Amino acid sequence: MNKVITIGREFGSGGRELGRRLAQELGYEYYDKEIISEIAKKTSLSEEYVRNVVERTPHNLYPITTGHTISYVGSPAFAQMQSVYLAQTDIIKELAEKAPCVIVGRCADYILHDKDPFRIFVYASMESKLRRCKDRAEKSEALTDKKLAKQIRRIDKERAKYYNFYTGLVWGDLENYDLCINTTDLEIKSLVPVIAKLFK
Amino acid sequence: MNKVITIGREFGSGGRELGRRLAQELGYEYYDKEIISEIAKKTSLSEEYVRNVVERTPHNLYPITTGHTISYVGSPAFAQMQSVYLAQTDIIKELAEKAPCVIVGRCADYILHDKDPFRIFVYASMESKLRRCKDRAEKSEALTDKKLAKQIRRIDKERAKYYNFYTGLVWGDLENYDLCINTTDLEIKSLVPVIAKLFK
Repeated sequence: MNKVITIGREFGSGGRELGRRLAQELGYEYYDKEIISEIAKKTSLSEEYVRNVVERTPHNLYPITTGHTISYVGSPAFAQMQSVYLAQTDIIKELAEKAPCVIVGRCADYILHDKDPFRIFVYASMESKLRRCKDRAEKSEALTDKKLAKQIRRIDKERAKYYNFYTGLVWGDLENYDLCINTTDLEIKSLVPVIAKLFK
Repeated sequence: MNKVITIGREFGSGGRELGRRLAQELGYEYYDKEIISEIAKKTSLSEEYVRNVVERTPHNLYPITTGHTISYVGSPAFAQMQSVYLAQTDIIKELAEKAPCVIVGRCADYILHDKDPFRIFVYASMESKLRRCKDRAEKSEALTDKKLAKQIRRIDKERAKYYNFYTGLVWGDLENYDLCINTTDLEIKSLVPVIAKLFK
C-alpha cells in the first residue's frame, strides 16, 4: 500500500514548505495546488472559482441575516460547493492510489482515513507566523503586524470551520493527528531529514 | 547551557518509556520518581505523602461540601502542598542546572520556561493506552477494560487539573509544546532514535 502523509497547518507555520521538502526528501509525490486544477477539470468550474470556495464553508458565502432562518441546503451555491467537495474527495483518493505522496490541507487526513495516512499538524506562535509571512511577502504587500495577525487569524478560522464542517472533527486537535510540530524558531529545512526518518 | 527535554504524557501513552529511552540514547540524565525522593528530603515529609500530593490540586484533597464556601488558602494542608510545589520547583531548577536531562511530568516545562526546554507531549488513543496498561500490569491487578479506562481518564483529569492549577495553562494544549506525539500503534523503542536526531 502506498504511504500517504497528510499535512494540516496553521497559516504562516511553514507547513506547506515542510510538506514540499518532505516529499522531495522521500521521493514522494507532492500535492497541494494541483488538487485545485484537478477539481476545476472534473467539475468544469474555473480554477479561480474553485480556489475561492475550496476552503470555505457554505455559511461564509452568504451574508448573515439575523432574525431570519436561512436555509443553505438546496440552494444552487450550496449544491455547487458540495459537488466541489465531492470532486476533491474523488481526486484525493485517486492520487493516493497512484503513488506514495504528501498532501497538504483539503481534509485529506479525513478523506483518506481508510488508508491510514500519517497525519501531521504544523503550528507556530503568532510572532513566528508573522515573521514567516513577512519574509515571503512582496514589499508591495507589506501590512502592519496588527493587520497581518488579523489576516492570519481569519484564515485559520476559515480552515477550522471548513475542516469541522466536512469532517465533524476539530481542526488542530491532537487526537486527529499522529505528530504535531511547533515550528516556532525552527528551520524547516533542518527539520525535514528528522521527520523523514520516520518513513525510512 | 544544558539542553533540557520535558515530557508531558497521558497515562498509558508510553511517555515515561519514551523519556527514559531518549535520555539513554542521548546520554542525558533522566528524572522522574527521583524528584519525589528529593522533595521528601527537602521538606522532611515522607516519600509516600509527597507521592500522594504531588499530582493533586488542593481541591482534590478535600470532600466537596455544597452550600458552604470552603477556603483552602491558609489551611495547614494547603500550606503543605504549596511547600511541596515550591520544593519541587527548586529541585527541578537545580537538576536542570547540573546536566542535560529529560524530566517527566511535574510541570517541568513551565517551571523551566526561562531555560527554553524542548517540550514534548505524548498521547494515544484509549484503545492503545488500555493495551499498554494491560501489558505492563501484574496479573493480580487485572481490571476490566471499562474500569481501566475509567482509571486512565481519572488520572489524566488529575494531571490536567494539577497542571492548570500551577501554571494557568491547559495541559495537552498544542501551544504549550514543541512536539506532540501520538504513540497509538507505535513502538516507543523504534521512535526514540528518530526523536533523538532532533538533539544531535
